[in-house]
Amino acid sequence: MTTSLQGKSFIGFSRSTSTSTWCHGLDATTGESLEPAYNRATDDEVERAVKLAESAFAPYSDLPGKTRGAFLRAIADGIEAALPAIVERAPRETGLPDARIRGETARTTGQLRLFAALAEEGSWVDARIDRAQPDRQPLPKPDLRCMYRPLGPVAVYCPSNFPLAFSVAGGDTASALAAGCPVVVIGHHSHPGVAEIVGDAVVEAARKTGMPEGVFSLLFGGGRQVGLSVVRHPAIHAVGFTGSRAGGTALMEAAAQRQRPIPVYAEMSSVNPVVFLPGALEGDKAATLAEGFFGSLTLGVGQFCTNPGLVFLPETGGEAFLDRLRALVEDAAPGVMLNASIACAYADAAEALAQQTGVQVLARAQKSPGKNQGAPLVLEVSAADFAANPALQGEMFGPACLLVRGAPESIEAAIATLEGQLTATIHGTEEEIASQPRLVTALKERTGRLIFNGFPTGVEVCASIVHGGPYPATSDGRSTSVGTLAIYRFCRPVAWQNAPQSILPPELQDANPLGIKQSVH
Amino acid sequence: MTTSLQGKSFIGFSRSTSTSTWCHGLDATTGESLEPAYNRATDDEVERAVKLAESAFAPYSDLPGKTRGAFLRAIADGIEAALPAIVERAPRETGLPDARIRGETARTTGQLRLFAALAEEGSWVDARIDRAQPDRQPLPKPDLRCMYRPLGPVAVYCPSNFPLAFSVAGGDTASALAAGCPVVVIGHHSHPGVAEIVGDAVVEAARKTGMPEGVFSLLFGGGRQVGLSVVRHPAIHAVGFTGSRAGGTALMEAAAQRQRPIPVYAEMSSVNPVVFLPGALEGDKAATLAEGFFGSLTLGVGQFCTNPGLVFLPETGGEAFLDRLRALVEDAAPGVMLNASIACAYADAAEALAQQTGVQVLARAQKSPGKNQGAPLVLEVSAADFAANPALQGEMFGPACLLVRGAPESIEAAIATLEGQLTATIHGTEEEIASQPRLVTALKERTGRLIFNGFPTGVEVCASIVHGGPYPATSDGRSTSVGTLAIYRFCRPVAWQNAPQSILPPELQDANPLGIKQSVH
Repeated sequence: MTTSLQGKSFIGFSRSTSTSTWCHGLDATTGESLEPAYNRATDDEVERAVKLAESAFAPYSDLPGKTRGAFLRAIADGIEAALPAIVERAPRETGLPDARIRGETARTTGQLRLFAALAEEGSWVDARIDRAQPDRQPLPKPDLRCMYRPLGPVAVYCPSNFPLAFSVAGGDTASALAAGCPVVVIGHHSHPGVAEIVGDAVVEAARKTGMPEGVFSLLFGGGRQVGLSVVRHPAIHAVGFTGSRAGGTALMEAAAQRQRPIPVYAEMSSVNPVVFLPGALEGDKAATLAEGFFGSLTLGVGQFCTNPGLVFLPETGGEAFLDRLRALVEDAAPGVMLNASIACAYADAAEALAQQTGVQVLARAQKSPGKNQGAPLVLEVSAADFAANPALQGEMFGPACLLVRGAPESIEAAIATLEGQLTATIHGTEEEIASQPRLVTALKERTGRLIFNGFPTGVEVCASIVHGGPYPATSDGRSTSVGTLAIYRFCRPVAWQNAPQSILPPELQDANPLGIKQSVH
Repeated sequence: MTTSLQGKSFIGFSRSTSTSTWCHGLDATTGESLEPAYNRATDDEVERAVKLAESAFAPYSDLPGKTRGAFLRAIADGIEAALPAIVERAPRETGLPDARIRGETARTTGQLRLFAALAEEGSWVDARIDRAQPDRQPLPKPDLRCMYRPLGPVAVYCPSNFPLAFSVAGGDTASALAAGCPVVVIGHHSHPGVAEIVGDAVVEAARKTGMPEGVFSLLFGGGRQVGLSVVRHPAIHAVGFTGSRAGGTALMEAAAQRQRPIPVYAEMSSVNPVVFLPGALEGDKAATLAEGFFGSLTLGVGQFCTNPGLVFLPETGGEAFLDRLRALVEDAAPGVMLNASIACAYADAAEALAQQTGVQVLARAQKSPGKNQGAPLVLEVSAADFAANPALQGEMFGPACLLVRGAPESIEAAIATLEGQLTATIHGTEEEIASQPRLVTALKERTGRLIFNGFPTGVEVCASIVHGGPYPATSDGRSTSVGTLAIYRFCRPVAWQNAPQSILPPELQDANPLGIKQSVH
């Protein structure tokens, strides 16, 4: 399968003819260059991809939800059929193990089918009907009906850390396509081969299910030249992004400076505070808790946006927890990271944090990391030092965390300084959590998801999930990038006033031919 | 009543002590200065108002919806009790007639009670519940629940043209307070007296219903000094604004440049295209249609964001319509505008448009406008000239419109150049509208509300209204500023994972003590 990779962008239904080399996929473990070379899409090709998306918008957005659903299901089927190629390529490009890649692929196809079901069922449009009251005084009431409609073509930027679930056919793409928006994906240099395999599945699904050309394109070519021209293109209506704060804020700036500013949904960085109350650390369960926490900290070599990077602990006590955690970290094997620059950045960030005033190393893996590897690390600081130093809130993207210890009031003061987060977690007995409403409120106001006696890694894809959070966790804290609510990122409400039934979309017709939920007021 | 006006900002429950004069209310007709002088809030007072809002957020946002509803109803009652003072002051400050002021006051209290009912009923939070599946393979599913929660303190900027319905206790304030957000209002110099009367009613209602201090403040002091410090304040979480494009984009820029960018909901400008198809202009009904159109064009001296400023007509025909329109415009009396600068800006904009290539005057009021007055005006241009000149899309804020005439395909080409609009209207028979799906689609993609055989002025406040639209009609086309959907502008979803029942908000508890709609997945 790998031999059939061409290294060319998908411009609608055709392939790029560029021969200018952008990058090679690299073996994350060895650094070896993988074939083929990936070519940078030309300016003309970028323009054509976005223009095709623009022309696809009207026909695609007016398709019945069932037809869009069939397209999404065909993508999922195609990805499943490509699983052998994916598990051959992805572990090499990303360093992620076979089991993780299989799990992430299943999550990706599950997401596609979840959004397919949402589109097929159709009630997500929130159809609202206010009937006319011609005799109302002092003025007659017109007939008004409204529903959510797609925004227009969406640009999706792939991250390094989810080669499947947030990339070419990941959550952003699935929710935008379900909403009725064509998608232009910008691939990530960390896994171009996986991108091509998945891109091929999407294009084949689009052909097979009769979608208009331009409903999907996949561009190789990276940041400045390709990435920024897409966000600046007048025909793009919204952006989905997962990655660094620098990358996300660059897109936010570009989007705000356009003649017509557009929404950017950038999921950027989060240290995911975990608060351990004394009750959680008592007795036999402390060692088990340390094992659970260590598992969450080191999952995927810590390369999750929900990695628990910041831990609040009581000033005293918790020895059993700390002893077990220290032992686990010291015995831990370093892991291969997604790419060489992430491994460097992790080492740098951990080193920089360790140098800050009052910070000490609680535990470090005894085995030194090899090439492109990251090793678990636990740092420690007092709550007072933490609250006084914003640099201690920086994300170490990898298997490291900072323990902050202090009396309850100094922990509360430290939490009051926290930036927005994707998640916040509290461990404790029900009684002690209930007795600290101020702490619960302070965490709730700073996060999109509040977790009790659990761990932040593992983001369930369902109707009630929120994977979002106040800035800078995301650029737009009013949204989630996971779960069915994610579809509303790419929509706007449109009202029809006194429209003849024959002109109304089926969702708003009195006869309700789609059988969706209509709310009549 | 007027004699009790103090000219001082409301800083929470206390009054400003500033003695620095910012402005006087002016009699719109005569230009006469009205008592008292309005004083500019000091920097310290601005800071205190926002800090009070910040400290009010936690207690206010956690109040039961019924309690917030009672607050909103008390505001409505207070405004009704102040009606004699309002109808004494508002017509002088705005030039708007008594009947309009009474109508707008009724709309304002109606809106407050609509949002009160929404908060009291409580289902708007979209409570979602995914129950745990501990035995699920390969991984257990956690218990997840989510609902919409308020963002934080909101800044509301009053416009000149709605002294009540979009000002101190207008739609932005009502929806933000219903959501659970404290509000800091920045008054408009065009009607400071009305602002003070309404502000007093809000503060009295807050006291009477036991709201935390800071749930509402009203600042006098205008643009740069007071207005910009509020949008830049770290404790402000969102902005509601209605006004000019210059004002709206200044707020957008300030919001984007903050350390933590915040959403801005600015309703800015719209020319509200109206398309007349040939069938609408045939026979006896043409004259009646012209009368209806003239009524919409001149309502409130054309000072509505939904004023029909742009009209598309077939290249030939429609004489009966045009003759009647011409006669009505020529006979029309000029009207007093909201303030002297709006009257000047209207005259300037109309003059500038009339000077553009190919533009001719079709009809002009014979009576010249007096001091601070605006007179109806109808200009005409070909579709080809229109499509070639973006300057012809400029808003003339007043009772003027531009008729664009051309063959169907040139009208379609002209419409393809249009910017985002609050409304778009089509007049024609059902058959001819149905036969032009491309035209309907082109209008739909450029607007928040699509009207059939009606007029854009008159915005019904209900569940199915959309008063929004793609940029630059609004800064954020994903929202509406009128109707119950407006509440979501000031909210974000928050999820609870594996939370004990005792810690969940009542909206998400299994026992559902509020009896709201919960969707269980």
